[in-house]
Amino acid sequence: MAMQCGVFMTPYNPPSRTPRQVFDWAVDIAQICDKAGYADYMIGEHYTLGWENIPMPEAIISACAQTTKTLRFAPMAHLLPYHDPATLAIRIGWLSQVMEGRYFLGVAPGGHHTDAILHGYDNIGPLPPKQLEALRLMERVWERKPFQEKGQWFQAGFPGPETMPEYWVEIANNNPFGGRDKMEIAVTALSMNSKSMEFAGSRNYSPISFFGGTPQMKAHWDTWASSMQAAGFTPDRKRYRVCRDVFIADTDAEAKRLFLKSGMMRTWKEYLKEIYVKFKLFDGIIADSGIDITPENIDEDFLAEHVVLCGSPETVIEKLEKLADACGGWGQIVANQHDSLDDPKPWEESLRRLASEVCPKVRMPDLAEVN
Amino acid sequence: MAMQCGVFMTPYNPPSRTPRQVFDWAVDIAQICDKAGYADYMIGEHYTLGWENIPMPEAIISACAQTTKTLRFAPMAHLLPYHDPATLAIRIGWLSQVMEGRYFLGVAPGGHHTDAILHGYDNIGPLPPKQLEALRLMERVWERKPFQEKGQWFQAGFPGPETMPEYWVEIANNNPFGGRDKMEIAVTALSMNSKSMEFAGSRNYSPISFFGGTPQMKAHWDTWASSMQAAGFTPDRKRYRVCRDVFIADTDAEAKRLFLKSGMMRTWKEYLKEIYVKFKLFDGIIADSGIDITPENIDEDFLAEHVVLCGSPETVIEKLEKLADACGGWGQIVANQHDSLDDPKPWEESLRRLASEVCPKVRMPDLAEVN
Repeated sequence: MAMQCGVFMTPYNPPSRTPRQVFDWAVDIAQICDKAGYADYMIGEHYTLGWENIPMPEAIISACAQTTKTLRFAPMAHLLPYHDPATLAIRIGWLSQVMEGRYFLGVAPGGHHTDAILHGYDNIGPLPPKQLEALRLMERVWERKPFQEKGQWFQAGFPGPETMPEYWVEIANNNPFGGRDKMEIAVTALSMNSKSMEFAGSRNYSPISFFGGTPQMKAHWDTWASSMQAAGFTPDRKRYRVCRDVFIADTDAEAKRLFLKSGMMRTWKEYLKEIYVKFKLFDGIIADSGIDITPENIDEDFLAEHVVLCGSPETVIEKLEKLADACGGWGQIVANQHDSLDDPKPWEESLRRLASEVCPKVRMPDLAEVN
Repeated sequence: MAMQCGVFMTPYNPPSRTPRQVFDWAVDIAQICDKAGYADYMIGEHYTLGWENIPMPEAIISACAQTTKTLRFAPMAHLLPYHDPATLAIRIGWLSQVMEGRYFLGVAPGGHHTDAILHGYDNIGPLPPKQLEALRLMERVWERKPFQEKGQWFQAGFPGPETMPEYWVEIANNNPFGGRDKMEIAVTALSMNSKSMEFAGSRNYSPISFFGGTPQMKAHWDTWASSMQAAGFTPDRKRYRVCRDVFIADTDAEAKRLFLKSGMMRTWKEYLKEIYVKFKLFDGIIADSGIDITPENIDEDFLAEHVVLCGSPETVIEKLEKLADACGGWGQIVANQHDSLDDPKPWEESLRRLASEVCPKVRMPDLAEVN
């Protein structure tokens, strides 16, 4: 099986973009990826972040239901503490049916402090246990058997004719398309010692790694695989998705020239670099590079050479194969999306070439053997 | 000003329709209405009702953002007790910006018992006070000033640089398009002594009446207008929307023939009649008709003559003018939507004729005078 490619629409657009601009752009990128043969399209959910402003991934998915054919969509992730679990369970199931199965589900507790404050919290501490309760109630809703449960934070139930015969009507079946068991659930990981990979493995959810260097990528896999095995599941590298920044053009020089004036460069300069420095997310990448540089001093050249997969198709293939040799393989490379409204063509071309010229040619370790 | 026309997508489709069928149909109807010059398109929100299965009105609105031009959309209504208020406030504002203002908001406490059970309640009793708390918190979120409030059921807040300087990022502006004050909020009423009309008037929200005969329609207006005046607002009949079933064809005979085999007829037979009998919603219509009939005995002929505005354009105009003379005028007639998948053309034609041949010709009392 060739490596699949996917897209992660965080999104990364400057706060000056309007919600409509971001919406239109996200829909455009989905249509391009659908035609180019991408497998998956994942959309973040954030409420307060000027640079990552899609609070309702379902809006993008719905807008693409009729205009895409094979692309699978996922909210990545629904932040469970910020939703009524019964409402969300029904909406997830209904939307997966609208998408006729071109849907999978990302879940997360929420990690951004300003989102937590918006939702009335002092900090993100209480969110993980709240996520667990939400998940338990959602799973009960999907069982479609009468129950009523009042948890610590949430409550949910399911009606049956015996509950309230006077008001009985036919209950809509808004379970996930094909049944709950057919719906993939996935979880993302960023930091080196990610608890979310352990959590994912313990429940047979799929792992998605935001790249932070080979030690971190190995750790993500190892944590997930151990947790899967401990819970009696078989880890499969084809389920491992790895998110990267990718910029492809005819030659390495051309790719770098275009990258330097791209929206991706702008995201790094104006937004991501500070966050990566603050949370020490460059450390693994610096170690991989073998270069003596502090995170604060990371410049355009370092970004182009070591952070972004930037270059000709051949160069990007070579870098991916080197990474796979170091970390073991994965099933899907996921390209992070960055604002391309001012100069869309080089970006769209790069996206298409990832699918047509890179993915089919990357030589992966035999995924069956490296488990 | 001519009477406007609008659409209410409850939706009414048999439970055998899949979510995708209902989704596609709702999007199709929106596109037809947009081209035909309809003003507003309202979409219900229900979680368990097999016959009214759109749990996420935002999905239809999002799917129509790029494919409609002038039609305004509203969730009618978001059931506030079933949502985290901070999440909903941000999503409402963001979506109204995606729609570039072609958006207004319906709010309701939720009135269906099986939806309440799904959300962990024994009955619908606790929902109205919960709605009020949700509204207060949503309004505070839209103020965009730092706060933190833990209510009886919900909590919310808003971040400011002083709250958490270490994590400060630029906060997305997801307030309603053009500012909170520019967003219309509307409320529907069904029963004769509707508390929701009083509630709407006290807050300057717009009134929408589900038709149940002239006494009920008068009562809805009177309650709203009195409540508006008591709160210091000026009631304006142009803001009054009235929902009706409408079926238009060349002649009365042809309209009745088509109505009898329509999805609308099926909804009445298989779903609505029992509900209308149970909750005594036919009483005002029977009184208007002057016919000695019990609700249980209401048949196709009575539906065609007294419940549905069924007939040639001239007949429908005449019936609307008679209603306006009896009740005072209104600003918008809202056509309830019923499944038309098996025979779409007569239904779509009827929809178009309501906009092109009926609405422009209905002689309304001078709305300014009858306040």
